[in-house]
Amino acid sequence: MRMYDIIKNKRDGLTLSSEEIAFFVRGFTDGSIPDYQASALMMAIYFNGMEERETFDLTMMMTDSGDRVDLSKIKGITADKHSTGGVGDKTSLIIAPICAACGVRMAKMSGRGLGHTGGTIDKLESIPGYKTTVDPQDFVDIVNKIGLSIIGQSGDLAPADKLLYAQRDVTATVDSIPLIASSIMSKKLAAGAECIMLDVKTGSGAFMKTTDAARELAKAMIAIGRRAGRKMAALITDMDVPLGRCIGNALEVIEAVDVLKGNGRSDLVEICLALSAGILEQSLNLSEEDSLAAARRALEDGSAYDRFLDMVKAHGGDLSFIKDTSKFRLSPHTREITALKEGYISRIDTEKCGLASLLTGAGRSSKSDSIDFGAGIRLHKTYGESLKKGEPYATLYAGSQDKLDAAEKMLQSAVTISETPPPQKTLIIDRL
Amino acid sequence: MRMYDIIKNKRDGLTLSSEEIAFFVRGFTDGSIPDYQASALMMAIYFNGMEERETFDLTMMMTDSGDRVDLSKIKGITADKHSTGGVGDKTSLIIAPICAACGVRMAKMSGRGLGHTGGTIDKLESIPGYKTTVDPQDFVDIVNKIGLSIIGQSGDLAPADKLLYAQRDVTATVDSIPLIASSIMSKKLAAGAECIMLDVKTGSGAFMKTTDAARELAKAMIAIGRRAGRKMAALITDMDVPLGRCIGNALEVIEAVDVLKGNGRSDLVEICLALSAGILEQSLNLSEEDSLAAARRALEDGSAYDRFLDMVKAHGGDLSFIKDTSKFRLSPHTREITALKEGYISRIDTEKCGLASLLTGAGRSSKSDSIDFGAGIRLHKTYGESLKKGEPYATLYAGSQDKLDAAEKMLQSAVTISETPPPQKTLIIDRL
Repeated sequence: MRMYDIIKNKRDGLTLSSEEIAFFVRGFTDGSIPDYQASALMMAIYFNGMEERETFDLTMMMTDSGDRVDLSKIKGITADKHSTGGVGDKTSLIIAPICAACGVRMAKMSGRGLGHTGGTIDKLESIPGYKTTVDPQDFVDIVNKIGLSIIGQSGDLAPADKLLYAQRDVTATVDSIPLIASSIMSKKLAAGAECIMLDVKTGSGAFMKTTDAARELAKAMIAIGRRAGRKMAALITDMDVPLGRCIGNALEVIEAVDVLKGNGRSDLVEICLALSAGILEQSLNLSEEDSLAAARRALEDGSAYDRFLDMVKAHGGDLSFIKDTSKFRLSPHTREITALKEGYISRIDTEKCGLASLLTGAGRSSKSDSIDFGAGIRLHKTYGESLKKGEPYATLYAGSQDKLDAAEKMLQSAVTISETPPPQKTLIIDRL
Repeated sequence: MRMYDIIKNKRDGLTLSSEEIAFFVRGFTDGSIPDYQASALMMAIYFNGMEERETFDLTMMMTDSGDRVDLSKIKGITADKHSTGGVGDKTSLIIAPICAACGVRMAKMSGRGLGHTGGTIDKLESIPGYKTTVDPQDFVDIVNKIGLSIIGQSGDLAPADKLLYAQRDVTATVDSIPLIASSIMSKKLAAGAECIMLDVKTGSGAFMKTTDAARELAKAMIAIGRRAGRKMAALITDMDVPLGRCIGNALEVIEAVDVLKGNGRSDLVEICLALSAGILEQSLNLSEEDSLAAARRALEDGSAYDRFLDMVKAHGGDLSFIKDTSKFRLSPHTREITALKEGYISRIDTEKCGLASLLTGAGRSSKSDSIDFGAGIRLHKTYGESLKKGEPYATLYAGSQDKLDAAEKMLQSAVTISETPPPQKTLIIDRL
C-alpha cells in the first residue's frame, strides 16, 4: 500500500477502504507518512468528502491511537454532552446536575481551550478550592457517590487527532464536515460515556455559519456514535446572539448558579432543559414529554442545585460562594456601557462580543496566557429588549482601564440599536 | 501576507494575486513555507484550477528562480521545440536540421529524463564521440556558425519548478493543466528561444489521455509563452501507437538519419514536416503553405541532412556512423518476434511497447540507471499492416536473453492482430 495511491484515490472521488484509512492514520502518527502527503489528502477530503463508513473508520483509528477513559466501574448509564462552542455557553454547569438529579451518571471531562472565555474547567476553577485534576479512581468514586463529576481531561485521548488537527489548522482544511465530525467524535468516544448529547451551534457566532451545515455536521457525528454503539442525539441551536447574560468565568458560574436556584432567564433555561431532556430521553428511554418534565422538575424542586453543591463539595470547592454568589471577587475595574440612542437591541454580533470578552482578560489568545477569572461582560439588556438613550445595557469587568477601553470599543461595535423591535428568534432550530 | 490565507483563497475558488503567487514561490524555494502548506495549495489548485494570469505569474516566478540561458549573441531568430513525450519520438533530431537549413537558429537544450528510452541527449551520445556537454560560449559559436546545436541542459534552470515538481510527484498533484503548463513553460522560457513549437501528444501512450485535455494544455502553454513575448504554436498529435519504427537510442538515431537521407516512413516524416513548418511559419513569418514547402525542400535536397552532419562534426561525433548507420553496434542478443496468427495489426499499446523497450535496457527506471545505447525495438510492421502467421513483425535487441524474454512477453501483450484492417489513424489532430 502506498500513500500516493490513497491520495490519488480520494482526489479521484473514490471511497477509501478501511485498510487505507488505517494505513494513513498509523503512518501519519508514527511519522512514516510525511506531513505534506497528509495535507494533500486532507485537501482532497475537503473537496471530495468522505462516506459514512470512511468517516467512522477515520474516527475509530484516531480514538484507538491513545488512551480510553474507563467508565466501566460506574454503576448506571453514563452520559456526556458536547457543544461546538459559543459565546456565553455555560450549559454544561447546569445540564450535568439536572441529569444527575434524574439518575443519569454524568462523568464529564472538559477542556480549557482557547477563546473569548476559558473552557468549562477554567470556569469551575473560578470557584475557590475546586480541584479539576482528580485521580481516575476518585473520579469514578465521586460519580458513583453523587452522580456527577466534571474534571479536566486526563490521559492522552486521540493523539492522532491532535497531530492531524494541528496540521489542518495551518493548511485551511479545518472546514470539512467529515474531518470536523471525526475529530470531535474521536475524543468523545475515547472519553467513554454511553450516551452523547450534541449541541451544534449555528449562526454568526458559531463555527457552522448555516443551519444546513450544522445539521450536516450533527448527522455525521450521530452516525459515527451510533456505529460505535453509543446512544446519540443532537440539537441545532442558535448562536446569532450570545447565550444568556454573562460572558466570563466567575460571571458564568454566577449565572449558572442563578439558573440552578430557579432564577434563570428564559433563553438559557430553555436550551439547558432541551439538552437535558435529550440526554434523559436517550439514556433512560423516556418519552420526549416525560424527559422534559423530569428535567424541569429537577430544576424547580432544587434537586439539580443540590447536585451542583455536592459536586463542588466533592471537588473541594468552597460552598459558601455558591450559596452566596456575591462573594465572587470580580475584576476591580468596571465600566457601564450605555446606549448611544433610544431603541431596541436588534443585533449583538456574537463574534465581536466574544472578542470584547477576550479583551477584558476573560479568555486566552495563546495557550500560555493566564485567565482573569473575574473579568468579562454582564449584559443587562439583550436581543429584542428596549433601551433609553444613555441607559446602561452592560457592565464590563477588567484588570485595568486600558482593557476596559479596548473591550468597550469592541462591545459598542457589536451592538446595533434600531427604532423598531426586531423579529423574535428561535433558539432551538432542530432536534436530531 | 500569510500562506494560510493563500491556501484558503484558492480552496474557496478565488483568484490569487501576483503578490500571493510571488510570496508562495519565494517562500517555498527559500524554505520559509513548509512543504505541507505547499502540497495543500497544490491540491486546491488541482481542484479549482488557475486563471491565465495566475498560471503566467507562477511560470514567471519559477523561471526567475534560476538561471536564464543567454541566446542574445546568436544572430537571427532562435527556436526551440518541446514534446510532451511519447514512445519512439526522435523528431528533435530531424526537425532541428530541417529548420536550421531554412535559416532558423536551433539552439536547443535537451534532457536525459526517465522512461522507456533515454532523452534526446542520450540518443545523441550513442553516436561515438558526440559531446553533449558544451561551454555556453562554444554553444553560441556553433549555432552562429552552422545554425544548430543540441546539448545537455547546463545551468540551474527553474529550480523552483524542480522543487515543486518533486513534491507534486508524491502528492498526486501532477495531473493539473495549469501546473503542468507552468512547469514546462518555466523551463522553456529560461532556455531562451524566441519561438517555441509545442508537440502535445494525446492517446493511450501519452501523458494527456484525451484530445480535449491535450488541447487545453496546449492552449495554456501558448498563452503563457505569448504573454512572455515569445512566438508560440502547437500541434496536437496522436500517440496511440508508437511513432515510427524504432524505439531505443542508437536505433532511433538510425531511423532519424534514414529520414534525413530521404528514406523515412510516412508517419514520422509527416509529423516532422508539420512541426518544422510550424516553426518556420512563426519564426520567419511564412504562410502555412510556404513553410511546409520549405521544410519539404530541406529534406528532399539534402540540406537538412548536411546540417545534421555539421552538427555531429561540431560536437566531435564520428561522421562515418552517420554516413553508414550499419556501423552502429546494436546489443548482441536479438530476437525476432513473430505473429501468432494471420491478420492486421489493429492496436499497439504504446505504454506496453515503451515498457518492452525499457525491459530491453534502452531506458532508465531510476536516475542512476545506465542506458544500453544499442538496446531497443525495431518494428518491421506497424499499425494497419498485414501479417502472415509466423511472420516476424519486430526485432528486439538486448544485453541478455533474460531481458529479451521479459521484453518479448511485454511486446506480445502490446500487439493485437485482428482479421480485418483497422480504421486509418489521423496523426496530426489539431494545429493551434
